[in-house]
Amino acid sequence: MRMITLSEAATLLLENDNFHILTHRYPDGDTLGCAYALCYALRTLGKNANVKMNGKLPSKFTYLAENYCEQDFPCDFVVSVDVAADSLLGELEQEYKDRIDLCIDHHGSNSLKADNTLVDATCAAACEIIYVLIKSMKVEMTVDIANAIYTGISTDTGCFCYTNTTAQTHRIAADVISLGCDFQMINRINFETKTRAKLKMERMVYDTMEFYCGGKCAIIYTTLAMQKALGAGDDEMEGLASIPRQIEGVKMGITMREKEDGTFKVSVRTNDGINASEFCARFGGGGHMAASGCSIKGDLSSVKYMLIKAAEEVL
Amino acid sequence: MRMITLSEAATLLLENDNFHILTHRYPDGDTLGCAYALCYALRTLGKNANVKMNGKLPSKFTYLAENYCEQDFPCDFVVSVDVAADSLLGELEQEYKDRIDLCIDHHGSNSLKADNTLVDATCAAACEIIYVLIKSMKVEMTVDIANAIYTGISTDTGCFCYTNTTAQTHRIAADVISLGCDFQMINRINFETKTRAKLKMERMVYDTMEFYCGGKCAIIYTTLAMQKALGAGDDEMEGLASIPRQIEGVKMGITMREKEDGTFKVSVRTNDGINASEFCARFGGGGHMAASGCSIKGDLSSVKYMLIKAAEEVL
Repeated sequence: MRMITLSEAATLLLENDNFHILTHRYPDGDTLGCAYALCYALRTLGKNANVKMNGKLPSKFTYLAENYCEQDFPCDFVVSVDVAADSLLGELEQEYKDRIDLCIDHHGSNSLKADNTLVDATCAAACEIIYVLIKSMKVEMTVDIANAIYTGISTDTGCFCYTNTTAQTHRIAADVISLGCDFQMINRINFETKTRAKLKMERMVYDTMEFYCGGKCAIIYTTLAMQKALGAGDDEMEGLASIPRQIEGVKMGITMREKEDGTFKVSVRTNDGINASEFCARFGGGGHMAASGCSIKGDLSSVKYMLIKAAEEVL
Repeated sequence: MRMITLSEAATLLLENDNFHILTHRYPDGDTLGCAYALCYALRTLGKNANVKMNGKLPSKFTYLAENYCEQDFPCDFVVSVDVAADSLLGELEQEYKDRIDLCIDHHGSNSLKADNTLVDATCAAACEIIYVLIKSMKVEMTVDIANAIYTGISTDTGCFCYTNTTAQTHRIAADVISLGCDFQMINRINFETKTRAKLKMERMVYDTMEFYCGGKCAIIYTTLAMQKALGAGDDEMEGLASIPRQIEGVKMGITMREKEDGTFKVSVRTNDGINASEFCARFGGGGHMAASGCSIKGDLSSVKYMLIKAAEEVL
């Protein structure tokens, strides 16, 4: 792994062609925003580029791919965006894990195996890096690129609300809005729309909320049975992780979500300098200081017990 | 009423002294942010200035007044900030209604009686106008001013989420963050903290939700009895108005809040170009295209019936 600068990354992209751009599993707004923005930018430069989806494109993000169609070419250069570790390559791991030419990421904990790595952990979203990179390649920004960039920076900052937001985040938002990005549609989809099923899911989740460590730890969960009872899909499950940390006095909010494969996907959100990334590393996960995740195998009560025990040691 | 430009307003402020700055009743982040920012700026210029609170400073906003203390001087010049109509002068109406020298506002519907009026309806928050005004007066920005400006623009845009947000809103946010404003603390207070009482209030409010007009209108309410049962104060009641519009398919979300004086304070939030300001004008209120309010006297069921009838005519 060779750490490179932004201008070295730009040179690599300019000198190569026939790109596959890899997203991380459970694709979110940032990895998708990066992938589509970079793909559109490379195509503007006359290059071949495809976005390699990791699972299905979530229905709420279909607007990103409105002007996208898969191209047919043999892949020569593999770029990953917002993928922090090999395990997050998901269904792309088999095909690509030993042939990533360039890793672009904003996770300080990045451990992905790649020939060249560009990490800037001061960026709230990997899309900030992609934006600066595209500008440095002198690509003319299109509305599609602007929409993709805005999607990444707004979703990774909870619409400019999380502590990772910086002056740069707002400057880029101002730039892409000036370029005509449809931030009103994007905000509405990501932050202002709740299906009735989601509303019901939230209320059901509130019923699971328990407090530990004298109120400093709040934990909520969803089970497959709850999801099935409400007919809730992935869209309804989004954003639940931000619920427990919001409660006054809570320093660590833990959200457990039962998955089909017998594991719980665990999201940890923290306040006041509690290190969520270290906490999740105990269970083989990672992420950011205040927002991290891991997967734990087991049934509801045993996984919950493990998490509470670990929280008690930290808090 | 004389409509004036921003530079004329700056001249008026620079040429005068001994300011009283009026906020609107039920003071929110924008009117308070404007008032404190302008007050600190005028004091930086060596002038006397006081903020005239309308009711009590909400506890969540006490950080705005941390470095503020009332000055003792005879008032020579009265400025109102973010006050759209005489009726919104509340408890200040008696003393000031015929002597407002300068009205600064961002409500296109502004009808406040004042000698000079500066309205810019393209601004998401009146704090955007105040920021540009302070800069044009060549006042050096302090952290207190930055905090006050950020408070106004972030609260009036729902943390940069509402459709009124513009590139300028983000540019000003970037500027005040660069100046050292504590946006993390401000966001946490305004957008990321829920007391357990607020959580309970939200859940109780969800139980009141009813849909009309084929799901295009959602209506919720709170009563004094509900508030009392939960021990909920004004802080717990904040933000409820954004709940009903969020539901998929809803074009008009109506929130009714019973007040001590036998009226319901009604907040209307709309999507898709439905005019909330016109709707509220039917009941003597007003505001913005997508976010307006009014007060209606009556009991729960009669007020609700009036609102539903009016909504049926519009939708």
